[in-house]
Amino acid sequence: MAGNSLHVNAARLQENLEELAKIGRNESGGIDRQLASPADSEARAWLKNLWEKIGLGIRTDAIANLWGKPRSGAAEGRPIVLGSHHDTVPNGGAYDGALGVLMATEVVQTLIEGGAELRHPVWTLSMTGEEPSDFSVSTLGSKVLCGRLVEKDLEQIRNRVTGEKLETAIERLGGDIHRVAEDALLEKGRLAAFIECHIEQGRRLYDAGENIAAVTCITGIYREILYVHGEANHAGTTQLHDRRDALAAASDIVLAVEDLMREAPDLAATVGHIQAQPNASNIVPAQVMLTLDLRTANPETRAAALEHFGEAVRGIEQARGVVIERKLNLDQAEMPMDGDVVRAIGDAAEALGEPRRELVSMAGHDAANLARLTKAGMIFVSTVSGYSHCPQEAAPEKAVAVAAQAMLETVLLLDRRLPI
Amino acid sequence: MAGNSLHVNAARLQENLEELAKIGRNESGGIDRQLASPADSEARAWLKNLWEKIGLGIRTDAIANLWGKPRSGAAEGRPIVLGSHHDTVPNGGAYDGALGVLMATEVVQTLIEGGAELRHPVWTLSMTGEEPSDFSVSTLGSKVLCGRLVEKDLEQIRNRVTGEKLETAIERLGGDIHRVAEDALLEKGRLAAFIECHIEQGRRLYDAGENIAAVTCITGIYREILYVHGEANHAGTTQLHDRRDALAAASDIVLAVEDLMREAPDLAATVGHIQAQPNASNIVPAQVMLTLDLRTANPETRAAALEHFGEAVRGIEQARGVVIERKLNLDQAEMPMDGDVVRAIGDAAEALGEPRRELVSMAGHDAANLARLTKAGMIFVSTVSGYSHCPQEAAPEKAVAVAAQAMLETVLLLDRRLPI
Repeated sequence: MAGNSLHVNAARLQENLEELAKIGRNESGGIDRQLASPADSEARAWLKNLWEKIGLGIRTDAIANLWGKPRSGAAEGRPIVLGSHHDTVPNGGAYDGALGVLMATEVVQTLIEGGAELRHPVWTLSMTGEEPSDFSVSTLGSKVLCGRLVEKDLEQIRNRVTGEKLETAIERLGGDIHRVAEDALLEKGRLAAFIECHIEQGRRLYDAGENIAAVTCITGIYREILYVHGEANHAGTTQLHDRRDALAAASDIVLAVEDLMREAPDLAATVGHIQAQPNASNIVPAQVMLTLDLRTANPETRAAALEHFGEAVRGIEQARGVVIERKLNLDQAEMPMDGDVVRAIGDAAEALGEPRRELVSMAGHDAANLARLTKAGMIFVSTVSGYSHCPQEAAPEKAVAVAAQAMLETVLLLDRRLPI
Repeated sequence: MAGNSLHVNAARLQENLEELAKIGRNESGGIDRQLASPADSEARAWLKNLWEKIGLGIRTDAIANLWGKPRSGAAEGRPIVLGSHHDTVPNGGAYDGALGVLMATEVVQTLIEGGAELRHPVWTLSMTGEEPSDFSVSTLGSKVLCGRLVEKDLEQIRNRVTGEKLETAIERLGGDIHRVAEDALLEKGRLAAFIECHIEQGRRLYDAGENIAAVTCITGIYREILYVHGEANHAGTTQLHDRRDALAAASDIVLAVEDLMREAPDLAATVGHIQAQPNASNIVPAQVMLTLDLRTANPETRAAALEHFGEAVRGIEQARGVVIERKLNLDQAEMPMDGDVVRAIGDAAEALGEPRRELVSMAGHDAANLARLTKAGMIFVSTVSGYSHCPQEAAPEKAVAVAAQAMLETVLLLDRRLPI
């Protein structure tokens, strides 16, 4: 470990972060690079060009995940894969996803330039549609890789705004949903390990003045789409007792969701999306669609929250004479990270003079899906003031440099420790 | 009165209502015929064709109001104008606006066919953009006619969704906002009278089993657009005390608006429009735009409601650490209808064996603007179950027939009673 003479180029990594952040940047400084947007395509073209320049061969798999594999000096063992995603939420930031992809790039480039002779080949990976999007699915690329979504699921998915089929969108990105069965990595063990670097997206490291942590477990995420069915009527002539106002009922729901967090400090509960019909200022709203996002690493907390929420919904239905339809959208259990990878990250951190810090992730990540296939782990990077999914999202330059070097050291450790 | 031998053709009026209702009809049976939509243009073409066939010359004025003036037998006096509007709210009904335009058409057609010799010419009028729309203005055509909106106001207006200038939209409809000064009817008295027939949009006539009423006063309407400024952040990693959730604050506002109605039974208060940013299920909402619509015929009620609402907004800002920006969108005082017209409508109703019924309108209408220019009045028609601004919106066929004959009788009475 101490004898390692390879050093990542932190300045080059920062430059790449800045370049990629230009793709999809909007007027307010945020980034709009959602799944299958023009910016998604542009980012892919940029990334392929970068990878080719540093000596990687590119493969676009059936769900349009991008893989980069060194063209020469390939070791014989199973690959160690490094990566994340390049898509963003609407008006998102420059680090979520992009940092993990570009850090993977930097580590592999350093290995190639240093002529490192490893037992395992080291690949880069940028996955498709990690963020929730108008296709109502998140971590799309990794769900397909681990077989959680198969061809017949994908055929059903459409963009809820434009109506476009996911099939068409994926084709535009170079994939083919009818080939996903061939490309899924269903046999556990075909990869040696997967490591994803990501901003923490919370304040824990930043407030403690620390740079990095190994993630021990990824939170469970439960997501519903709720439809409130009321009745459209005239805003002037309809008296209160004649109203079945879907937006007033939806407001009750938003506040009931907030109350769930008051009851359980280890729970995050959010209504992030709302849409009213007919949405005109002089009409009592007839229908409102809204989302519920519940997260906890504790199954008991989750069960209690869902019970309380169900009671609240039934109460709102009765009090307001509306019908509230609930559709499960995602129910993903909490996922522990692999002990060998967590240990290697901690060893790498210590070797760099950093504390051996461990954290739970309250955000979902592709690594939770990859953990079904291989030894998966994550490196968290300090996040300025905890801001993420917004234009201010950033990681301190120092923390990024430490994380990149730690990822490189982790790869070298795992290369020695894991069977080929 | 009793000697009048002219009779409207109620069946023909019903047929025209059904024909016009096909324009803009959507899959759920409602009508999408908002200002400057393709259906708006289609309805105008249909209406011009109908008016030409019955012997009217068409004029499109600078704000694209459509006027129909008999081509022959024109009397010399100032015109009596009959009309309403042909646009609808999103997913609206077949009667709001359309009934008034087509009843005007039926009355004028009956007068032409009967060779009625009147002292005043009788014109039809279909006004532009009466309903609130994405251009954030309602009763557009009549506001321009009475000089409440002038060229420099109109130049500022854009579609809040598409960004299109109102100027461009009006040009597409055959108008020219730079000519509105020439076309406005600023001198009070150039018209002899204006009569608008409209569905009541409430349950009062329907529940009483009555057909029609004369409107004595049109409610005041006060409208604001509110912007809640919170902070975007990650839905998993941001704890409750770190959130400034714009949607939770907006929900508080919706419920505070509802409370205003509990405090004052002569008030209608509604949030009909809401829009969240970035509107993704895994992001705490950063900004929410919503509308407030307040209506009452009582200025004291209005003042008290606005005071209470201001207190509520300040409380929400403090409790949630958000900023709430309030923009006045409309502040229209209550408007009494003209006594001569109200009396003539009552006389006509009595002559038809109907009760002399009078009502306040809790909805705004173009007639409130025309009342600034001329003797204006309205005939209300019973509305099935009070439903309006929705696909179920309807008036009983009998009530429509009675209203049309009453409008004809009212015109004949006013023609005799009003100075030319």
